[in-house]
Parts: sequence; C-alpha cells; structure tokens
Amino acid sequence: MIVDNLKPPYYAVIFTTTLTEDREGYYEMAEKMESLAKEQEGYLGVESARSDVGITVSYWESLEAITKWKNNVEHTEARELGREKWYQKYQLRICKVEREYGFEQ
Amino acid sequence: MIVDNLKPPYYAVIFTTTLTEDREGYYEMAEKMESLAKEQEGYLGVESARSDVGITVSYWESLEAITKWKNNVEHTEARELGREKWYQKYQLRICKVEREYGFEQ
Repeated sequence: MIVDNLKPPYYAVIFTTTLTEDREGYYEMAEKMESLAKEQEGYLGVESARSDVGITVSYWESLEAITKWKNNVEHTEARELGREKWYQKYQLRICKVEREYGFEQ
Repeated sequence: MIVDNLKPPYYAVIFTTTLTEDREGYYEMAEKMESLAKEQEGYLGVESARSDVGITVSYWESLEAITKWKNNVEHTEARELGREKWYQKYQLRICKVEREYGFEQ
C-alpha cells in the first residue's frame, strides 16, 4: 500500500534487510510487529516490499514517537530475536521528510 | 544491495510505486535510469525492492544533487513516459537522513 495522506514535515524510518535461510516464525513476527506499530502514538503509516532485499518504510509524527516505538518491550524482544535468527544484515535510517509529490492515473 | 557506507547527514529520495499492466519497456528503462543516476554528481547509492508496491530509495549528498537529477533531460523524459504508461500511482519523498544504525551477522 502506498501511503499518500501525509503532510511534511514528518519522519520516516527506512529499514533495509537481507534474511538468513531460517525463516521460521519470521513472517508471523513481521505481521505482529506491523499490527503493534499501528497502535503506537504518532504512527502514520507503512510501506513494504521484498526482492533480494526487503525495504520497510514506516512514517511517524516525531522523533519521540520513533524512540518510544524503539523502546517498546515486545518490539525490543522481536528485534533481538531478529538479530539472532532472521537478519543476515540490516541498515536502519531515521529521516525527516521535507517534501513530497504524488501522482495517480 | 544494502547501502552501508554512508555517514549522516545526507539525503534520501523514497520513491514508492504501483505499476499498470503495461510493463513494455519498463524494466529496461528502470535499469537505464539506475545506471544514469550512478553517473550523477552527489549520487551515493540505491536500494530497491518490489512486491505489490515497488520501493526505490536513492541516496544523495545534497538537495542540489537531487534537483539536478530531477532536471536531467533523459530522466525527465523517462518520468513523463512513466506517467503515461507504467505508473498507476506513485509517491516521492525527499528526506534528510539524520541517524543510521547497521547490523551484520
């Protein structure tokens, strides 16, 4: 889903990953974390795609909202499990969205 | 490919798309634009994935570099063709990357 209802400035977390061969429990956990993120204060939306790499971009009202989500207990446990089992490598970037353009046919 | 050699602050362009059913020429053009982007001043890297939506994140040294790439003649022509033929919908966000964390097994 493309998120198209936001007005800059707001924040984006770009999370790019490659996975190990052990996918056991990964998709369930990814879905669970997406549902949990949606309940957080300041959550604005998420976009996600996977080919050789996976890219998940989540959008947030403020840096404070991102920090709170980072420190959420269930999210912290999921992240630790992710580093043990599922992620070969990841890069996480915290960005301020300054401008935005959209197109629709 | 995960881009992991950058030091904030720098800029990210998050380009999220859905495609029409007409893919004729699309993949060739996407590849050509990726090659052309790499030759631009201030280009730092790109990450790309496609499921229901496609997400391409390109990284740049400055807003000026992004504007120059936007105004590049071949890129402008490709974008116009994209709006006519290939893109059902897109959202493009220009962001300042403020912080970054990486992990590798």
